[in-house]
Amino acid sequence: MFYTDNKLQYPVRVDTPNPLFARALQQAIGGVEGEIRVAMQYFFQACGARGNPKFRDLLMNTAAEELGHIEMLAHAVALNLEGAPLSLKEEMAKDSAINAVMGGMNLKNLLSSGLSAMPVDSDGVPFDMSHIYASGNIAADMTANIAAESTGRTLAVRLYNMTDDPGMKDMLQYLIARDTMHQNQWMAALEELGGAKGAFPIPNSHPQAEEKTEFSYAYLGFQKDGSAPAPGRWSEGSSIDGKGEFTVAKLGALGEVPDLGKAKPKSGAQSEQM
Amino acid sequence: MFYTDNKLQYPVRVDTPNPLFARALQQAIGGVEGEIRVAMQYFFQACGARGNPKFRDLLMNTAAEELGHIEMLAHAVALNLEGAPLSLKEEMAKDSAINAVMGGMNLKNLLSSGLSAMPVDSDGVPFDMSHIYASGNIAADMTANIAAESTGRTLAVRLYNMTDDPGMKDMLQYLIARDTMHQNQWMAALEELGGAKGAFPIPNSHPQAEEKTEFSYAYLGFQKDGSAPAPGRWSEGSSIDGKGEFTVAKLGALGEVPDLGKAKPKSGAQSEQM
Amino acid sequence: MFYTDNKLQYPVRVDTPNPLFARALQQAIGGVEGEIRVAMQYFFQACGARGNPKFRDLLMNTAAEELGHIEMLAHAVALNLEGAPLSLKEEMAKDSAINAVMGGMNLKNLLSSGLSAMPVDSDGVPFDMSHIYASGNIAADMTANIAAESTGRTLAVRLYNMTDDPGMKDMLQYLIARDTMHQNQWMAALEELGGAKGAFPIPNSHPQAEEKTEFSYAYLGFQKDGSAPAPGRWSEGSSIDGKGEFTVAKLGALGEVPDLGKAKPKSGAQSEQM
Amino acid sequence: MFYTDNKLQYPVRVDTPNPLFARALQQAIGGVEGEIRVAMQYFFQACGARGNPKFRDLLMNTAAEELGHIEMLAHAVALNLEGAPLSLKEEMAKDSAINAVMGGMNLKNLLSSGLSAMPVDSDGVPFDMSHIYASGNIAADMTANIAAESTGRTLAVRLYNMTDDPGMKDMLQYLIARDTMHQNQWMAALEELGGAKGAFPIPNSHPQAEEKTEFSYAYLGFQKDGSAPAPGRWSEGSSIDGKGEFTVAKLGALGEVPDLGKAKPKSGAQSEQM
Amino acid sequence: MFYTDNKLQYPVRVDTPNPLFARALQQAIGGVEGEIRVAMQYFFQACGARGNPKFRDLLMNTAAEELGHIEMLAHAVALNLEGAPLSLKEEMAKDSAINAVMGGMNLKNLLSSGLSAMPVDSDGVPFDMSHIYASGNIAADMTANIAAESTGRTLAVRLYNMTDDPGMKDMLQYLIARDTMHQNQWMAALEELGGAKGAFPIPNSHPQAEEKTEFSYAYLGFQKDGSAPAPGRWSEGSSIDGKGEFTVAKLGALGEVPDLGKAKPKSGAQSEQM
Amino acid sequence: MFYTDNKLQYPVRVDTPNPLFARALQQAIGGVEGEIRVAMQYFFQACGARGNPKFRDLLMNTAAEELGHIEMLAHAVALNLEGAPLSLKEEMAKDSAINAVMGGMNLKNLLSSGLSAMPVDSDGVPFDMSHIYASGNIAADMTANIAAESTGRTLAVRLYNMTDDPGMKDMLQYLIARDTMHQNQWMAALEELGGAKGAFPIPNSHPQAEEKTEFSYAYLGFQKDGSAPAPGRWSEGSSIDGKGEFTVAKLGALGEVPDLGKAKPKSGAQSEQM
Repeated sequence: MFYTDNKLQYPVRVDTPNPLFARALQQAIGGVEGEIRVAMQYFFQACGARGNPKFRDLLMNTAAEELGHIEMLAHAVALNLEGAPLSLKEEMAKDSAINAVMGGMNLKNLLSSGLSAMPVDSDGVPFDMSHIYASGNIAADMTANIAAESTGRTLAVRLYNMTDDPGMKDMLQYLIARDTMHQNQWMAALEELGGAKGAFPIPNSHPQAEEKTEFSYAYLGFQKDGSAPAPGRWSEGSSIDGKGEFTVAKLGALGEVPDLGKAKPKSGAQSEQM
Repeated sequence: MFYTDNKLQYPVRVDTPNPLFARALQQAIGGVEGEIRVAMQYFFQACGARGNPKFRDLLMNTAAEELGHIEMLAHAVALNLEGAPLSLKEEMAKDSAINAVMGGMNLKNLLSSGLSAMPVDSDGVPFDMSHIYASGNIAADMTANIAAESTGRTLAVRLYNMTDDPGMKDMLQYLIARDTMHQNQWMAALEELGGAKGAFPIPNSHPQAEEKTEFSYAYLGFQKDGSAPAPGRWSEGSSIDGKGEFTVAKLGALGEVPDLGKAKPKSGAQSEQM
Repeated sequence: MFYTDNKLQYPVRVDTPNPLFARALQQAIGGVEGEIRVAMQYFFQACGARGNPKFRDLLMNTAAEELGHIEMLAHAVALNLEGAPLSLKEEMAKDSAINAVMGGMNLKNLLSSGLSAMPVDSDGVPFDMSHIYASGNIAADMTANIAAESTGRTLAVRLYNMTDDPGMKDMLQYLIARDTMHQNQWMAALEELGGAKGAFPIPNSHPQAEEKTEFSYAYLGFQKDGSAPAPGRWSEGSSIDGKGEFTVAKLGALGEVPDLGKAKPKSGAQSEQM
Repeated sequence: MFYTDNKLQYPVRVDTPNPLFARALQQAIGGVEGEIRVAMQYFFQACGARGNPKFRDLLMNTAAEELGHIEMLAHAVALNLEGAPLSLKEEMAKDSAINAVMGGMNLKNLLSSGLSAMPVDSDGVPFDMSHIYASGNIAADMTANIAAESTGRTLAVRLYNMTDDPGMKDMLQYLIARDTMHQNQWMAALEELGGAKGAFPIPNSHPQAEEKTEFSYAYLGFQKDGSAPAPGRWSEGSSIDGKGEFTVAKLGALGEVPDLGKAKPKSGAQSEQM
Repeated sequence: MFYTDNKLQYPVRVDTPNPLFARALQQAIGGVEGEIRVAMQYFFQACGARGNPKFRDLLMNTAAEELGHIEMLAHAVALNLEGAPLSLKEEMAKDSAINAVMGGMNLKNLLSSGLSAMPVDSDGVPFDMSHIYASGNIAADMTANIAAESTGRTLAVRLYNMTDDPGMKDMLQYLIARDTMHQNQWMAALEELGGAKGAFPIPNSHPQAEEKTEFSYAYLGFQKDGSAPAPGRWSEGSSIDGKGEFTVAKLGALGEVPDLGKAKPKSGAQSEQM
Repeated sequence: MFYTDNKLQYPVRVDTPNPLFARALQQAIGGVEGEIRVAMQYFFQACGARGNPKFRDLLMNTAAEELGHIEMLAHAVALNLEGAPLSLKEEMAKDSAINAVMGGMNLKNLLSSGLSAMPVDSDGVPFDMSHIYASGNIAADMTANIAAESTGRTLAVRLYNMTDDPGMKDMLQYLIARDTMHQNQWMAALEELGGAKGAFPIPNSHPQAEEKTEFSYAYLGFQKDGSAPAPGRWSEGSSIDGKGEFTVAKLGALGEVPDLGKAKPKSGAQSEQM
């Protein structure tokens, strides 16, 4: 259950409104690396967390934090849009700067939402909830979260490098710091779950004796000329999960030429296929 | 550049066709944890890999492998669909088993593709390429790949537990083994990039002095009553990236009540908002 | 900013788990009439609310409530999935009841989320945030909210009529009551904004003198034979906004046959078009 | 059944082609507030209208009108694109005005459709038919239509304010007038269905005795500090549906901490969850 | 501009309502091979048709026909849904036939639309207007239309083979006949545009001297072992467009190993990439 | 099964990086006319090809080629993005050229992928695999492929006309040539399947005696005034499939006014509908 206090988690200030930066910030709201994604991902992972309840607690607590980040960014988008032109009228069109802004901003931020934020990315594409990874496997969920925060902090750093507005830089310094914590937080949770040697291969509940173990730690080459692809830590030494030794092999086809035979009558195929 | 030999990477055999299992297998083709996703993700990551070329090599080589997995699964789907009824006619409708199969299968596998595989998930939802995470940051890409293979192997294990068809179990044992390798492979690549202490926080090129460091390693509580959420590895000890110490704090609002003021004239708002 | 207490807003109890009902409940989570939609719609409307701050307050407060409804429904889905089979194995396939359940449930609830809720609808289609209507016009937003709660309560009533599980009926009685309130609440907000006569036509800030007023209150017929379509309140009497009188007319084409002329050279058209 | 006369419903004239305005007009075709949406929404509502046939008649008649609006807007888009550059060649790139236009227009309007309209919004996102609300409840449908025309007229007004092309202003004055009528028309239909007191709460066929009536007219507060959110018409007086009195209350959690217990064996969870 | 007469283009009768067949029919409404697709595709092609106006005429006339087909199918879906159960209640759940129907039908046809048709496919996935191919090249449009009617008639035949309801078979016999005509109609239009030798390669306005003609009629092999793939009409004889001779060759890489070099500073990459 | 040699199929060179052209090229990667579409379409058609195995061979061989085209274009996008600004900082914003570029480029190419290609179109919309037409009918598949290559070559020609970069023109000359071949190749395959007279109407396995033959070759007019639409090859002479004679007729409604009667109790409709 959720509560609000109608305040912002951290101050949001825009010194010089910039509609192009508003468009860029939309990626941090509705992009696949954005805050809706992490808020809803942690929320749904919490709702499906079976086993030790402290993971549900950890996830829902962080979901609450991320909801506040969406709110901050939505406010920042609206403040940046304050400077947007509303018109393409002729006298304005002569000013190429206005034209460039109008052409460069996300038009839905004006036409659909009246100079406010939307749950879309920087090109106006709406966020799609298929990006909420909540697998029912708590360790797989942690890997998805580390990935989400890694791309999320990368995005926040790019936004930070894009602007020199003091207010926006201050807000992004806060969000970047939180992404630092969240990367660490989910790695810490994975460590509680056994780390590389205990949690992997995920799911660790499946008996490895039932997989084709000759392929479990082999770096297979699919080079046309049969050569080995570039070697690395992945081609020799102990496997990271501590359960095998990396080997290298090229792979040729082990299976046959696939053949489905003829089509069934009345299946809508051509006569020649039957 | 790609080449083919028209054979399957590993043998695909279905002993007893089962249209419901065909539907389940579709998740491994067109689901967000499926093989189109990993094939295309590694492909696009390879195309954008800057820096040491061995990562491009590693990624594109594995993309080639995954393309072969899509092909195997597509063949398995078509073989399982061989047993599907084509009709709801009255004499057949009396047989509730036929009805259950017809109702339970993905109807597009019949109506759209004529008993063949499609790039859709187990509920008939088409795969959407926004799930191809290729960030331009090689370490962030590795975290996305570990996550993809973790949910991928979880899915493969669920499919394996769902069937007792010997052919299908054999194929899945191969795919599960490859997922084991790929989890390890991407963790190994991350280790080459410095591992937890060298690669994190991602991106490691951003100077941490420019983030609000008082929030970088704090586990913040967002509990209504101000209590601390459940403690764990994430709330004490050195941070996993080795650059800080975990602390715990509750967070109240640091920002103000957000206020956008009045709407602009001619912005399409109500008069009362202006 | 948001807070949680880790409890459910209202008790959620399932007496007899039913995986088919789990699938139906998914519509109330990730369907276009569902709770993610209203939670996020009120959230984004609040973030863009200009003018009197009490509307922001009203919207964000209700967003907090709806977040708790998602959580309740997600718990209900997981509890209903407790009864789901994990297998299509032969001995089980002989039991047509198991087959019907496996075929009838949303397979991603098993394969993707391990018997937990997902942000998808009853056919497994993910929620898409383009359904978040937040127009920047506070009255238009209220009409969208009345519509959302009207289809939402209709859905809740259909779910209520579908089950006889006492726990589920109790939960739905709560949610139906809240939808009653929310329909009334948004109508009340519209009344504060002037009601039918003050708020309409939306936006009320646009001078009606600048529209083609001869068409502003005419019920136009588009019948092939030129007859008038069925009369009703919409074809006579004062208009609901109090600013005109309804009239009836048939409409023939006022414009010309559209003709774009020839295609530009080098525009990729056929030679015959140039 | 539908017929055409190959003419435009109302004259469409563009005095000065403007590719940026073409992009903006796309929102009125393929945006969620656009004409495809209303045409198809009324069409499908008509097809599912049970009960008094005059509502089917009303809906299908208006669907025919809206199809003509799509045609008008598509013509307007193509006429505005007549001024678009086809090239980024170097001599042209020096002209920053050309660059601004090329960068600002929807590139698919050139690359995919050869300077013609498409069923996409102003940012090139295709319209998705999940926005067709046709609920099988005629009153709920009317609320969805009032909302559609409210956001639709808001969009048309924004487009009108954006241009000073006389032809485009004339066309938009017609469309704005029709939106005025349609807002009134659907409110009139709702009045025929009983208005606020007769039609609400929707669906009015559900016995209110079976909802938790103590929550049916209560404005609940979800403020962290337990304070009441801002009062208004929604917090006191008779409810708008005339069936209750508004009250105010804060809500604390009525339910328990949700706990799903352990994961099932073979469900793909980690061992630690079982 | 469009008109209606409120009647069905062809009689629609269902003798024995079958909710599973309703689900199958949804594919013909909202599937990618369905009637919304062709109606809207011809509509938008008409709106963008430059050059000889008879093609606009042909396209818009057929769009009007297809709108009537959507209406027929929507009526057929609603009639088939008349037999659907509304409940999963315990006494009914014992009847496995009811369970199979409830599990097999598209649940949104009940929950979202109250036993009416929706613009979705047979698995409940909404139609997405990106499938409207309107290229601005009239010959390319004709090829898209031949393809649409080919998959469309294949779908109609599959539906015809699936049912033995006399009313449904009669309706489908009409629709199949119209698809026969439409395949022929668009082939005839392509013939008017010059047929294989005049219209191809599309666009025929591009000077072939500016393409790499050594690759214009070569069937290239991409076999791992360098062997030629299976020969056919495509590997020898005159090309179908009459402008070349088919040849066969294997292709090895003509380009280099791609190398993007180092990442830019401040681009969000890892330090190791810079 | 697939192999790679890590080289490009054809040289890719960019003389003057142009971020706007990078955006345009994205359409050829992730647009509906792009290379992902054809690669995956031929791949899935191959996997479902029943009957003569040479068609599977032809399809999979060409799929391998198209995968190499995606790789070429992805490299071209990244090279063009080398010239992109990373910043909107004030000193740069004064330069309207930089602003125009930043506003005109696809921002996700910077924010999400760090100056690399993505599987999205020129407006940043991700490719959606519902565009993979693989019907199980080999002739219908060939029509879909001719259409794909016709719109594909049209797109490539538009890109070619848009640039004067010698490297890009050279690459596009190769791709245009391959599209010429592929148009011819699929027409040749259709000729092997019987051509217009043997393969059509598709599917040719359905007995035409079971369609309403009076409608099979009639060009029906849907004009409001009952006039015939513009005549052409489609209105007289032998049908293209050689199985009938084209005729012309106007069509009035053959069916009745559709009437669904009353809504079921407990179906969520209004009381007035029951």
